[in-house]
Parts: sequence; structure tokens; C-alpha cells
Amino acid sequence: MKAFETEVQFSTDGDGTIVDLTSHVGDAVRGSGIHTGQATVFVPGSTGAVTTVEYEPGLLRDLPEFFEKYIPSGVTYHHDDTWGDGNGFSHLRASLVGPSLTIPVSGGEPVLGTWQQVIFLEFDNRARRRRIHISIVGQ
Amino acid sequence: MKAFETEVQFSTDGDGTIVDLTSHVGDAVRGSGIHTGQATVFVPGSTGAVTTVEYEPGLLRDLPEFFEKYIPSGVTYHHDDTWGDGNGFSHLRASLVGPSLTIPVSGGEPVLGTWQQVIFLEFDNRARRRRIHISIVGQ
Amino acid sequence: MKAFETEVQFSTDGDGTIVDLTSHVGDAVRGSGIHTGQATVFVPGSTGAVTTVEYEPGLLRDLPEFFEKYIPSGVTYHHDDTWGDGNGFSHLRASLVGPSLTIPVSGGEPVLGTWQQVIFLEFDNRARRRRIHISIVGQ
Repeated sequence: MKAFETEVQFSTDGDGTIVDLTSHVGDAVRGSGIHTGQATVFVPGSTGAVTTVEYEPGLLRDLPEFFEKYIPSGVTYHHDDTWGDGNGFSHLRASLVGPSLTIPVSGGEPVLGTWQQVIFLEFDNRARRRRIHISIVGQ
Repeated sequence: MKAFETEVQFSTDGDGTIVDLTSHVGDAVRGSGIHTGQATVFVPGSTGAVTTVEYEPGLLRDLPEFFEKYIPSGVTYHHDDTWGDGNGFSHLRASLVGPSLTIPVSGGEPVLGTWQQVIFLEFDNRARRRRIHISIVGQ
Repeated sequence: MKAFETEVQFSTDGDGTIVDLTSHVGDAVRGSGIHTGQATVFVPGSTGAVTTVEYEPGLLRDLPEFFEKYIPSGVTYHHDDTWGDGNGFSHLRASLVGPSLTIPVSGGEPVLGTWQQVIFLEFDNRARRRRIHISIVGQ
């Protein structure tokens, strides 16, 4: 049994940017030498989230439209009264989706469906430099 | 310390099917021989999700009604323009709830509330054969 | 490699109570002696949830308002027909957000952003005594 960790860094253009992390997760798992276990992909930050989706152009439009419909960006939230940074919507969306995704590792690869990609959802209202933590435990 | 993995397979009737996985998770934990650690239940696929609920007839109606209200099935999504398979709603719901659930293992059993069951939510618009991966690490 | 577990207990005032668990998670990680691995924070129960947020007064109002808007408390759900306890909304909210959060452990500390706190969301319609399980695996 062992524990392995690595980070992925990239820049985003702010709200609506969706980054496909699948190859990074696969690289991390193979780099860990772990055959059976669990990989956790985590966003250290409160205005982005991680989940899975079929990464194709239609859903890359559907997802932002869904969040804009129910947690709109053009509305004032109590958070904005606190800081005045206008990203209350970013925080609410991020808390709802969550910052963490744990994927089983089997046969030295992450267990994912063929049309299932691991994505980072940028919700912040400005371009951001992002650092994603990948932690793998197993044998 | 060791890592254990198993799979559960079943068929669904498409959107609205909710499968109680609790006994399968308990069987997997006991079969692993792991006393203290973590069990991850994962859907390899982008039109189903895993969470917990009190598995009783009322909530088995409330949950599908909730998703139908906010991410309706009878609407065209950009995803449907890409593939024409009409299941854009399935993907959005699955990304929102998420494909992964990690449960602590304590005393050789999954840590769950008395009225808390582990469920698979089928969102796809057709009957599916499903394979759920359960990964357990610990000692 | 080792596995460690502990519990945190507290009381809530019912729906709308948001408890900052961050220091408890940090204490658990340091108490475990685990340097690299994963910590899972879990609610054994079906009317509360765990996620992260920037723990500041504005968002502590925004989050309950969001849930009240889309899964209102003053509506009858099928669950309420089953038990008559009037907390159908609590269950739906809890299933949506989820009972589990897995955080990487690095350098003997949980990996969290500076303005990212781990929170318990109480959704039940009455004061509750809560027990949160924290499970840590790693080396």
C-alpha cells in the first residue's frame, strides 16, 4: 500500500470555462504505480468544482446555461455585500457541485466510462490560475 | 492495509429507476475483510449518479419529480443537437449529483444512518445495463 | 500506511444551521499522524450534507435562501405523506448536496484553499444532535 500525490496547474478565462482533466488523472494514476485503490481530484478553492460529464460541445454549452438559469450571475447575493467582488453566484454554484471527486483505480487505470470525462468547472467571475490536487491511495 | 474491489451489475428501466445499493455495499465491505477505511461507490458512465436517501416510496417519487421540474426531459438541449439521442437532461442531472460516493468503513461495516440508503439514480432515457464499481481501502 | 477514524458531535437548531467543521478536520488529520492520503468527512443521516464554502456571513444567508427557493420547506412532498414528519424538503436537499466529502491530505494537513471551509448543512426541520464521521487513510 502507498499514497501518491501530484498537482495539475492551468489558467482559465473565468466563469464558463470547463477543463477536461481526464488525461491528467490517467497520467497521475499511471505515475503512482498504484494498481488498485482510489484517486481523489480536489479543487483547493471555493469558486470552482469537479464532476464528470461527456465532454462534447453541446454539454459544454448546456452546463453553463443550467447554472446561469438557476444561480444567475447578474443578481446581487449577500456575499457581494460582504466583499463587493460580485461573485456570490460563483460560490453558490461551487458549493452545490462540490470540490471533490473520488474515482476507483483498477488495473492501474482510473475506472471511467468511455464517454465520461473528469472536468473542472470554473465559476469565478474573472480569469484564474488554478491548481488541482490529485491524491491516490492503494496498492 | 489493503485495497479491495468488486462490481455490482443490474438492469434498469431508464429514467426514474432508483436502485438501493446498500446491501451490496455492506456485502463488499464484509467481503473485503477491511475493518477501518473508506469505500467508494462509483458509476462508470455519464447518465447515472450515486447519492444517499431514505429509501421509502414517497422520496422515490419526490426525487424524480424534483429533477423533472428543474432539468426537464421534454426540452431540447445542445447535447441533443450533437448526438440526436435526446438525453441531454440525463447528462445534466448526472453531472449535478455526481458519479461518486465515499463512505467510511468502521468496525468492518459501512458507516450509514439507520434511515440512510446508498442509491443509484438512473437518468438515461432508455433501459440500461449498469455496472457499479465498489473500491475499498483500509486495514 | 494506516487508517484512522474519529467523530465530531454537536447540536444544531435545525434547518439553516451551518457548522464550520474545518478545525475539526484539521485536528483529525494531525491526530492521525498521516502525512499523505485522503480524509473523508461523512454525515450518517439523510437530512444533512457536507460541502465546502467560504464561511462568511453573506454566504451563510445565501445558501439557505438558495435551498428555500428551489426546494421549499412550506410545500408537501410525497415523503410527508409517508411519515407525516414534514421534512420532505430536508431529504431532497441532503440527497442533492450529498453526505460525503473527500479531501486530500498533504504535508500532514488537509488540502484546502485559504477561503475554503468544510461545512455541515443542517436541513432537518427540528433541532438535531449530529455525529460526523471522519476517516483518514494514508501514510
